[in-house]
Amino acid sequence: MVKVGVAGYGVIGQRLADGVALQKDMELVGIADLAPTLSIRALKERGMPYDLYLVEGADKAAFDAAGIPVKGCFADLIGKVDIMLDSSPGGVGAKNKERYEKAGIRAIFQGGEKNSVADVFFHGYANYEKGLGAQYLKLTSCNTTGLIRSVDCLDRKYGVDRVAITIIRRVADPGDYHRGLTNALQMDKAPSHQALDLMTIMPHVEATGILVHTPVTHGHIITVVAHGKQGKIRKDMALAAFKAHDRIRVVRIEDGFLGNASFFRYARDLGNPRGDMYEIGLWEDSIVESGDHIMYAINIPQESVTIPETMDAIRAALRMQPDAASGTAETNKYLGLGKWK
Amino acid sequence: MVKVGVAGYGVIGQRLADGVALQKDMELVGIADLAPTLSIRALKERGMPYDLYLVEGADKAAFDAAGIPVKGCFADLIGKVDIMLDSSPGGVGAKNKERYEKAGIRAIFQGGEKNSVADVFFHGYANYEKGLGAQYLKLTSCNTTGLIRSVDCLDRKYGVDRVAITIIRRVADPGDYHRGLTNALQMDKAPSHQALDLMTIMPHVEATGILVHTPVTHGHIITVVAHGKQGKIRKDMALAAFKAHDRIRVVRIEDGFLGNASFFRYARDLGNPRGDMYEIGLWEDSIVESGDHIMYAINIPQESVTIPETMDAIRAALRMQPDAASGTAETNKYLGLGKWK
Amino acid sequence: MVKVGVAGYGVIGQRLADGVALQKDMELVGIADLAPTLSIRALKERGMPYDLYLVEGADKAAFDAAGIPVKGCFADLIGKVDIMLDSSPGGVGAKNKERYEKAGIRAIFQGGEKNSVADVFFHGYANYEKGLGAQYLKLTSCNTTGLIRSVDCLDRKYGVDRVAITIIRRVADPGDYHRGLTNALQMDKAPSHQALDLMTIMPHVEATGILVHTPVTHGHIITVVAHGKQGKIRKDMALAAFKAHDRIRVVRIEDGFLGNASFFRYARDLGNPRGDMYEIGLWEDSIVESGDHIMYAINIPQESVTIPETMDAIRAALRMQPDAASGTAETNKYLGLGKWK
Amino acid sequence: MVKVGVAGYGVIGQRLADGVALQKDMELVGIADLAPTLSIRALKERGMPYDLYLVEGADKAAFDAAGIPVKGCFADLIGKVDIMLDSSPGGVGAKNKERYEKAGIRAIFQGGEKNSVADVFFHGYANYEKGLGAQYLKLTSCNTTGLIRSVDCLDRKYGVDRVAITIIRRVADPGDYHRGLTNALQMDKAPSHQALDLMTIMPHVEATGILVHTPVTHGHIITVVAHGKQGKIRKDMALAAFKAHDRIRVVRIEDGFLGNASFFRYARDLGNPRGDMYEIGLWEDSIVESGDHIMYAINIPQESVTIPETMDAIRAALRMQPDAASGTAETNKYLGLGKWK
Repeated sequence: MVKVGVAGYGVIGQRLADGVALQKDMELVGIADLAPTLSIRALKERGMPYDLYLVEGADKAAFDAAGIPVKGCFADLIGKVDIMLDSSPGGVGAKNKERYEKAGIRAIFQGGEKNSVADVFFHGYANYEKGLGAQYLKLTSCNTTGLIRSVDCLDRKYGVDRVAITIIRRVADPGDYHRGLTNALQMDKAPSHQALDLMTIMPHVEATGILVHTPVTHGHIITVVAHGKQGKIRKDMALAAFKAHDRIRVVRIEDGFLGNASFFRYARDLGNPRGDMYEIGLWEDSIVESGDHIMYAINIPQESVTIPETMDAIRAALRMQPDAASGTAETNKYLGLGKWK
Repeated sequence: MVKVGVAGYGVIGQRLADGVALQKDMELVGIADLAPTLSIRALKERGMPYDLYLVEGADKAAFDAAGIPVKGCFADLIGKVDIMLDSSPGGVGAKNKERYEKAGIRAIFQGGEKNSVADVFFHGYANYEKGLGAQYLKLTSCNTTGLIRSVDCLDRKYGVDRVAITIIRRVADPGDYHRGLTNALQMDKAPSHQALDLMTIMPHVEATGILVHTPVTHGHIITVVAHGKQGKIRKDMALAAFKAHDRIRVVRIEDGFLGNASFFRYARDLGNPRGDMYEIGLWEDSIVESGDHIMYAINIPQESVTIPETMDAIRAALRMQPDAASGTAETNKYLGLGKWK
Repeated sequence: MVKVGVAGYGVIGQRLADGVALQKDMELVGIADLAPTLSIRALKERGMPYDLYLVEGADKAAFDAAGIPVKGCFADLIGKVDIMLDSSPGGVGAKNKERYEKAGIRAIFQGGEKNSVADVFFHGYANYEKGLGAQYLKLTSCNTTGLIRSVDCLDRKYGVDRVAITIIRRVADPGDYHRGLTNALQMDKAPSHQALDLMTIMPHVEATGILVHTPVTHGHIITVVAHGKQGKIRKDMALAAFKAHDRIRVVRIEDGFLGNASFFRYARDLGNPRGDMYEIGLWEDSIVESGDHIMYAINIPQESVTIPETMDAIRAALRMQPDAASGTAETNKYLGLGKWK
Repeated sequence: MVKVGVAGYGVIGQRLADGVALQKDMELVGIADLAPTLSIRALKERGMPYDLYLVEGADKAAFDAAGIPVKGCFADLIGKVDIMLDSSPGGVGAKNKERYEKAGIRAIFQGGEKNSVADVFFHGYANYEKGLGAQYLKLTSCNTTGLIRSVDCLDRKYGVDRVAITIIRRVADPGDYHRGLTNALQMDKAPSHQALDLMTIMPHVEATGILVHTPVTHGHIITVVAHGKQGKIRKDMALAAFKAHDRIRVVRIEDGFLGNASFFRYARDLGNPRGDMYEIGLWEDSIVESGDHIMYAINIPQESVTIPETMDAIRAALRMQPDAASGTAETNKYLGLGKWK
């Protein structure tokens, strides 16, 4: 049993912890955080299913005042694990890395850290093999993770050599108050980092893109214009590939999937914890052809989409499975991915 | 075991079904609906934990095409139950009532129906006794249900004779596309129906109020200015009463409950199904005194707040418990209400 | 002096009337409407700068009650004009057309009507010549109008044979309550009608696209991926063409044009009536190249963008100017377009 | 002619400048700012109707690069004026005050500064006389300014001794990206500062209140529960008083004033510069009685509402008119306030 710890129990950290807890070949040793946030208070109200460790600078008295039991300090947690999943606020992970190095443990960082923090910039499907045995890995961000799933899916089957993307980005998560946007669409300087990141992971693809922030909290929507390397990818070809993928849920507007909030509603109705979805959505009714290009739209559930690929990263780093096919299959099995098919 | 059916498996209907399923002294016989909505599709993906019956006008072929198993027709469901919870779209319940009358079964309607559909306009705490043995009951709407919880709580302890409310109303639920509001606050003609409804349920209180629609999906916020019948209700008095109530969760801004979305976030983190909350929230930091008045703010989780009082209504209609204290206590036990204290 | 009437004094109608009033070679005879809306009440408070005529079905008593002077009925207005600009609610224009035919006057319909209402589907730059002497013309919708400006601009200079667009659509106008969207992005079935409409106007271009509705009120944003017919259109080439266009304002994020709301803010600060802008915005920082494609983002001020092309349509229908160059130049002169350069 | 300068040409500063320019007994000498913002760029595109002076720390080269003519430095402007209107970002005004003191000129600060910056906390109607001859005044904030208009209006006529308010606050202005809120209502700790400020200006009134932030940009809505000192203020009494006030526009939902965005729409249709409104809105259909209390709702156009009271403050500080009645009347005349009646 691989022993795993989680640093930073925020939006991503909670889901990483839950994800690890579902992997039958991993053990979640505990989580670490700084302050008695709402999420930590909820953990207490749930009866502390996960042990809590305090990172440096934490105000122990505040935890005591809230009646939240503490198992130990960050060093204690580090001392008990094989690998740490670091979902601390951006920049903190780089500092934590010094501790991981001293303790000789592996670590996986999330998209908020700089690429230089890691040896490998990782995606479970697109470059699993690069992660094999790696000491420090960094996951692609939520948008890039979901985007690559769809582009890699087409690329494996038909070859893709160029994509142009438009990211319609959600600006906050449900419950956020510190960032937000009101009645405005905000432009980012192009090209978007997601297009650049895609080229880092899939260097044989030329990518560019524009990102626009929108005032919503449930799921990004990305449109992709893709060019087939070996000729036109037709709608039926793309659809067949997408439907066969375990982390892509193909849906139709006419069935009630009217937009990004429909996925959130559906996940809640499914009884998924937190109303989360690990898979990206892909609208069958969005797929259109233009000349030798194909265009389609996907939905990225930003809070949970990187969890499966992070589990893949653990599998790669610790050589639990030898390749992308077996590594992602094991993750999918434990997370129930693809079972809707 | 009281046998219960649910007509209309929408936002409220799903939660009624789940609520009944949690009551150890009730049995959920099944649910009825018209079309293979997202919620029905989710039920299928979950393996049909509840039997599905089709109401008149349903297109059976559409259900077959989606692979959704159907147990029978609406008449079949009606024939098997003691009481029906009707959460059909507004106006449909009144038509369904004719069927319930013919079948000689009881029914409980939701706030969308006219008051005339029922013998008793019901609230679990404020007038449980009026519902005892009643054939047809109508629940107060989501805002009124939560509002009355708080006013009744003060009234029972200290006496209240006048309230003036401001309802800051959410305009849609997560996943709604057919109603919405963009960058506007919309006024309703005053007085708001919630103030009038409060006076129907609590005739000894004089109430008025103004309602403003806001473009959000998570939880209404209501401010209440209340006058004590027997003298001023001080902050400490109000706080003590609120904290003792099993369906009121007293929170503080400084602990992270910054607004309505914090409750949604917290409920998700708690692992509550669908991220729902049965209790209303009440901000300790919002309670202020002014002259002989007290003012405070509450949060109403619109999707789920009426579920407990609907369970109370079943208990009253079927004389399962003799009074508000025992009826609400039984509901609270099965729904886990008040356990956070 | 060409005599012009406006039917329907709503969001578009008001701006058409103001636009005509600015053309020194046209005379605004009056406007027609059905009810004493806010816009009509504002007209009264301004002292009735435009004469008001009532369409059939209007409740004269309601206008009297509000003290709004009425000049005559719809037939009176029709009898006085050479051409009618019809911005009635969708579908009403088709009915009005019967009256225009009987009176033997020309008419120009807006994007809400079906194409079949008109002889020519019109855009001032892209097919002015087709409108010459036409009896009935229909303008492209707001998005299509702005989109074609930019594509035609590149096409004239360098040749364009294929575009793929993503429309990030505003869902309501400021002051709308009857339509709206709250915390959701909504998908339309692809391809979007704007892509199809572009091909109708510019049949030598192959176009496809995806449209996503967003909960904002100020300006659509469209991303365009375009392919040069005679080879790659580089960023510097595109920029030069865009900067030379009188209805395209090239801006930079770093200068403070952060998104769609910046244009609205800027137009208000400019003192433009209603905070309107006739030109589309184009972000220099959004232009990127990918392979032999160019990609860029534009801003469409939905309330006012079609006004210049509607003025062009009057010029074409009445053969006031013989070609696109002279017709659009005359419109631009009176509307002050391009003077920022 | 009183010579006036404006420091800080942002949302408020622009409107102060425009407001002064409309006063026939005042002269706007110029405005001062730090950076070539969108508003300054718009000033340039308009042909520099106001002279621009640069405050300390401004990057002259950036203005030159944008082709914006500069008249002089902040000291130059200070040297030419009798009084400065300081609408710099919060906290900067306090620093600027040192310069004003040295130069021996008067100044009026906006709501973002601390009360201690000024000798008098001022409202044109409620305490004009306190401002007579004062060297440094601070205006009430936008919400407090509008709120006091309505409470003072009732108080003058009938006496008011207690109010409880609920502020439904807009969270950003059109064109803001740096602050915002997405799909959430955010609570402030009670009592709101506006209630406390009201008591400072009107010490004979006891006030409390709760403020909730909402994700919109057009206008705050405030509900007021007020108690008459000399007995109940009935709806007809309140209505008569409100209708007679030159800075309160009484409207009805049924006439089309459905919410806060309707005022913005109406002001745009009126042709008001920037779509601004100096008056607050008050819904006739919102006025309700409860026991010996009256309740009503007002709309606060946050960008422009403090302009009239700031003009009043100039009149008081420079003893241009001796009392509230004559001072506010002069301001109203030049701003066209009350002419809708």
